[in-house]
Amino acid sequence: MNETARIEAFSDGIFSIAATLLVLELKGPPAHTPFWQGVASQWPGYVSFVLSFFFIGIMWINHHRLFVHIEKADDLLMAVNLLLLLGVVFVPYPTLLMATSITSGDPVYARDVAIFYNATYLGISVLFCLFWFVCRRRKVLDHYLGVTQVHNATLQYVLGLLCYAACLGMTWFSVPLSLAMNAAIAIWFLIPPRHRDFGTVGQNSAM
Amino acid sequence: MNETARIEAFSDGIFSIAATLLVLELKGPPAHTPFWQGVASQWPGYVSFVLSFFFIGIMWINHHRLFVHIEKADDLLMAVNLLLLLGVVFVPYPTLLMATSITSGDPVYARDVAIFYNATYLGISVLFCLFWFVCRRRKVLDHYLGVTQVHNATLQYVLGLLCYAACLGMTWFSVPLSLAMNAAIAIWFLIPPRHRDFGTVGQNSAM
Amino acid sequence: MNETARIEAFSDGIFSIAATLLVLELKGPPAHTPFWQGVASQWPGYVSFVLSFFFIGIMWINHHRLFVHIEKADDLLMAVNLLLLLGVVFVPYPTLLMATSITSGDPVYARDVAIFYNATYLGISVLFCLFWFVCRRRKVLDHYLGVTQVHNATLQYVLGLLCYAACLGMTWFSVPLSLAMNAAIAIWFLIPPRHRDFGTVGQNSAM
Amino acid sequence: MNETARIEAFSDGIFSIAATLLVLELKGPPAHTPFWQGVASQWPGYVSFVLSFFFIGIMWINHHRLFVHIEKADDLLMAVNLLLLLGVVFVPYPTLLMATSITSGDPVYARDVAIFYNATYLGISVLFCLFWFVCRRRKVLDHYLGVTQVHNATLQYVLGLLCYAACLGMTWFSVPLSLAMNAAIAIWFLIPPRHRDFGTVGQNSAM
Repeated sequence: MNETARIEAFSDGIFSIAATLLVLELKGPPAHTPFWQGVASQWPGYVSFVLSFFFIGIMWINHHRLFVHIEKADDLLMAVNLLLLLGVVFVPYPTLLMATSITSGDPVYARDVAIFYNATYLGISVLFCLFWFVCRRRKVLDHYLGVTQVHNATLQYVLGLLCYAACLGMTWFSVPLSLAMNAAIAIWFLIPPRHRDFGTVGQNSAM
Repeated sequence: MNETARIEAFSDGIFSIAATLLVLELKGPPAHTPFWQGVASQWPGYVSFVLSFFFIGIMWINHHRLFVHIEKADDLLMAVNLLLLLGVVFVPYPTLLMATSITSGDPVYARDVAIFYNATYLGISVLFCLFWFVCRRRKVLDHYLGVTQVHNATLQYVLGLLCYAACLGMTWFSVPLSLAMNAAIAIWFLIPPRHRDFGTVGQNSAM
Repeated sequence: MNETARIEAFSDGIFSIAATLLVLELKGPPAHTPFWQGVASQWPGYVSFVLSFFFIGIMWINHHRLFVHIEKADDLLMAVNLLLLLGVVFVPYPTLLMATSITSGDPVYARDVAIFYNATYLGISVLFCLFWFVCRRRKVLDHYLGVTQVHNATLQYVLGLLCYAACLGMTWFSVPLSLAMNAAIAIWFLIPPRHRDFGTVGQNSAM
Repeated sequence: MNETARIEAFSDGIFSIAATLLVLELKGPPAHTPFWQGVASQWPGYVSFVLSFFFIGIMWINHHRLFVHIEKADDLLMAVNLLLLLGVVFVPYPTLLMATSITSGDPVYARDVAIFYNATYLGISVLFCLFWFVCRRRKVLDHYLGVTQVHNATLQYVLGLLCYAACLGMTWFSVPLSLAMNAAIAIWFLIPPRHRDFGTVGQNSAM
């Protein structure tokens, strides 16, 4: 258990920096405009800050839920974790592009940015899947996870990947719908239904 | 106890980044002016850095006092904690707007910024209340906290919220008074009177 | 022992951000100049980055040595620790001013900046003294520290403060000498002579 | 074991900030260009972000593997660790220069930057060697490391240093070849062959 403590500490550092990064992009309202109007004109910055904060926060919660069940450090796992963290740190960039593109008024440009945005999330879900399969293959998971729970988790990771792929495909038909779908998947990963919830298995199995 | 370690590590990362963020806004004094005069002209930057550092530091101390008594990780708690951290990370932004607005000399603009500033603190106190009620509802608090202490803490969180609401209302009458009141509430949350002090209950109850 | 873990985690976050902050100030060499000449012209940035990294690193080592012997969290201690961290986070700012002022060629300006720089370190040494006296007064130190060792440590903190005060006074006579003295004090705090070394008392006293 | 916990926490903070630093350099694509063309024009920024993230990640993995076997904190070790961290934090700077120089089209300039880049890595490998020799000299390594393993590790650190020196020498003959060699050494330090792998000695020696 203690063996993975430092991997988690390094990951926590990366997650918290990535989550707060977009605060640095918040500019003051432009001079010589009434305050509330100036603040309102900054909305793409606020929205992208809040969105990337929550999406990274949700990924952190899932990373945390997973690491609760990882018993030992493994070299391949550390390398894949690094790859996953790279994806996490990248999130604020397409989020900011997304928010600013909306004000551009050019539908082709906005769709291209949305493709970039949704593709980033698809990439991260591929990395989460990869991470999970490495966990299984290297047998680093603890014995609190039963066979059914491991299968459920596998199903969820693959399902998440397919949803993000569908979300990316949707971008060519409707940008707003694809973004709503993207947010819906995030919320689905935040609220753990009974079947998904393998994060508190230790307590449950004790019952 | 160890179960909440990683939530605290992630929170600590966020708190420490938020607290140091405004150092990046400190510019050197303008060229071609005598040094001390140039440094003095930068005072809004210094003041907002010091203020947001202390206010975030005080919030961290209260977050810490609370987590001492949280025994287990909980999914809803993690989500509300994330919301609370978002509020914390946002603090440097209105603080900087506040400090720079004072030099603008426009009373309407200054009052609008003060409203924004006080509203941010009201929002954070709402999130602290929410966090505390989730803690109680989900029964994650340890048994060192007696019934009286839990009631006292509830009273304090609600009182804090009401004070920040009064502080926001005060802004329409007197901006300096509302800011003094805001600082007074922060100091009140820093210095723990015997009745507020549920942070060292473990030791007290051992007496 | 575990009681102070989170105070240390928060402090570590602040220290590491403060130490790395000046990397963000490193600019690429100016375009249209030969590479090595362009890099050489950036030396004030490199020097201030390296200096503030080491000075903050040395402060971190001393903070660490002190916390090894702090057994319990205390409200006043947390507040003073916050004040100390504020001083630490401020260090990169005068360091950068210092390095850039050297290229200005104006001796009055350079001396003013050196006063600001040395005054910052005097301020931090005052905060370290304050922190140590609060540790003693609140009786949070563990029993591995004998009476002689506590007295030695007190002597060292006060001596450090007097040295930084002398260093500040020296600035009016010779700027280079005051800076050399400042660096010498830092090195003196890095290399622990037998009398200063209360950081490994646990082991020594076991002998 | 717990004695080194705070050194690791401070190091983790530094490593994670250094790894994420170049995200701040990612600019949005230039306005008034088709999105994909604009994004493509930003490739030096992406490449340097990904490269420095991975190279720092690999150094972190090796730092972690080493600290698993360090039993006690030591003053000299802390000072050398600080020096090593300074090297780590510096990495993003030459990486960014490297990536942007490629677009300059000037072969002399590009070679000079590559020399700077490869020299940085040589410097860091010198610091890793120094760190390892201090570990051995100060006898802070635990008893899980047998004599053969310590000798193997020494061999690897010296070999790494020689490879980076060869890599630097190569820059005068062929810049692309020297960069490929640099990347190859990083990958060699990532994938632990049986002989290098002293990171999981605890488990192996139990067999």
